[in-house]
Amino acid sequence: MSELRYCPIKHRWTIVAPERKQRPYEFLRPDQEEAPPPEADPFAAGNETLTPPEIFSIPALDGSGGWQVRVFANKFPVLRVEGEVQREGVGLNDTVSGVGAHEVIVETPDAGRELADLSVDEIVPVLQAYRARLVDLRRDPRLRYVLIFKNKGREAGAAIAHAHSQLIATPIIPTVVVQELNSSREHFRHRERCLFCDIIRQELRLAERICLESDQFLAMAPFAAGFPFETWILPKEHSYDFALATDAELRGLAAILREFLRRMRALLDDPPYNLVLHTAPSPHPRPGRPDFWSTIEHDYHWHLEIVPRITRLAGFEWGSGYTINPTPPEEAARFLTEADPDREE
Amino acid sequence: MSELRYCPIKHRWTIVAPERKQRPYEFLRPDQEEAPPPEADPFAAGNETLTPPEIFSIPALDGSGGWQVRVFANKFPVLRVEGEVQREGVGLNDTVSGVGAHEVIVETPDAGRELADLSVDEIVPVLQAYRARLVDLRRDPRLRYVLIFKNKGREAGAAIAHAHSQLIATPIIPTVVVQELNSSREHFRHRERCLFCDIIRQELRLAERICLESDQFLAMAPFAAGFPFETWILPKEHSYDFALATDAELRGLAAILREFLRRMRALLDDPPYNLVLHTAPSPHPRPGRPDFWSTIEHDYHWHLEIVPRITRLAGFEWGSGYTINPTPPEEAARFLTEADPDREE
Repeated sequence: MSELRYCPIKHRWTIVAPERKQRPYEFLRPDQEEAPPPEADPFAAGNETLTPPEIFSIPALDGSGGWQVRVFANKFPVLRVEGEVQREGVGLNDTVSGVGAHEVIVETPDAGRELADLSVDEIVPVLQAYRARLVDLRRDPRLRYVLIFKNKGREAGAAIAHAHSQLIATPIIPTVVVQELNSSREHFRHRERCLFCDIIRQELRLAERICLESDQFLAMAPFAAGFPFETWILPKEHSYDFALATDAELRGLAAILREFLRRMRALLDDPPYNLVLHTAPSPHPRPGRPDFWSTIEHDYHWHLEIVPRITRLAGFEWGSGYTINPTPPEEAARFLTEADPDREE
Repeated sequence: MSELRYCPIKHRWTIVAPERKQRPYEFLRPDQEEAPPPEADPFAAGNETLTPPEIFSIPALDGSGGWQVRVFANKFPVLRVEGEVQREGVGLNDTVSGVGAHEVIVETPDAGRELADLSVDEIVPVLQAYRARLVDLRRDPRLRYVLIFKNKGREAGAAIAHAHSQLIATPIIPTVVVQELNSSREHFRHRERCLFCDIIRQELRLAERICLESDQFLAMAPFAAGFPFETWILPKEHSYDFALATDAELRGLAAILREFLRRMRALLDDPPYNLVLHTAPSPHPRPGRPDFWSTIEHDYHWHLEIVPRITRLAGFEWGSGYTINPTPPEEAARFLTEADPDREE
């Protein structure tokens, strides 16, 4: 059984998710194991029996009767849906039981295509699956946040090459999200303006860090980008919750995301990358925090964050909490703006 | 010129340290480049002209007239010592000029030996060099913290295989250190006891997460270890500042550190690792924070943190700020306690 543990010194949560291995140097995460050969690809069409039962799917666009996008529980979950959330303090230590959800969202039945290879029509159902799982899991009052993310490539943590995203729903709002919510609420409290909307206006005016812009969306390198080519994709109109995005908005997002991924792939030689959806937490009130949700519709702004994994964290980063970014975001944005999305590798 | 940038949303500092490269996918950090062949090892005895000028050294223990430990500026510094610290706000963004120090501490003149291969007599001068550089750089009123760390192995960020540590001194106290200082001060304020001393007492009583213990020091897996086999080495007696450690204390630290590193190497097949010294910041008063230093002698506790790099951070970790640890610290401590430090690979 997994357990969330809190460090009283670093104020940092860790999910201690033990795996049963024989020797200590095998205590590695599944994502470091070898990918299976293509014929044993558990995420391919026809191999559905190799995965846990289907939770959700979207029918194939070609009308073949198969699926286009398919969701099921992770076979090696870090959190499990069974049980009550127990919060306990033992001496100086705090724990929360490892209740949650850990699901896999397969993005295409084709083993050989990655997200950047899909058409806009094919990316839309992936985003619809994100939205559907978000809406469904928010109904569970034990779960405070649903984090949807994608690891592409082994260096970015992917265990299986077949294009997929994942979600992990947790009984605590993650630290990074709490920080964003706090910053946004504090900014709004004094100004009655959304912090993200203010940043979008500033960036559009400065025009130094914009990668791509469409009617509805903006792809930009954040001013304090922690990593080379870190990019955020945001709706230009204020919108606090991805779960409320319309199909038309998801189509706009699919278009700019596809364009960005193709440019990044061409520019950086198909890098491993992580993609994370940042959106409002589940709307369950927290004891003792009556104001936590009072202005979220106005103060928060959902977005995607994408980081190609081309640098390594080392001792300085662990010890300081800083990152070192050798690529100024202004240069990264310029390179991406000038990249040819259709360049053959 | 480097620049520290602050993210108003994530409250996170990044050092934007541009390097001059021709193509965007070469915008990688030097630590990802190939190690030079042994004959061109810039850190070996006899190759001193390949490095920037010597800042500090300790004479060879064999009386040969050479050096045992040698310190010089990093050839590719992320921060530079020249100039004044400028703090500036531009719109929603905050910057601090990239003034600081970035030095290399070569741990032995021998190219073929790593820190775990050195004798206690040879590790003591490495720790003396840490102490000497800490004392010297604290005199600079522009610098608020001196972070000393070691990256061992390319996966841990080492560019050069020859055994060495590094230090980076920054004009801002790093986020991780501020968090530790705040936790410690808050704990002390209510209890008049050091948080670390309380944890040491609790861990000694529980005896579940102790790896090694000597008269003066303890090596333990922290309760909420973020990574498999994460280990902290702490002085058992309260001591807030590594710079005040006596030679006798450094000898005790050298002994337990050597024993730990040899056990970890045997157990985990010579893993890449990071080691970070956590100690009190430079004693320069911060404007508006008169109480920041008032109890530090009583509330903070220096220690070493060591993390073997055998798991990868992926999208969930970036997006949440949590880590996932597949090895319960109780198991890690037991494996390390039982490991044979002299096992041949």
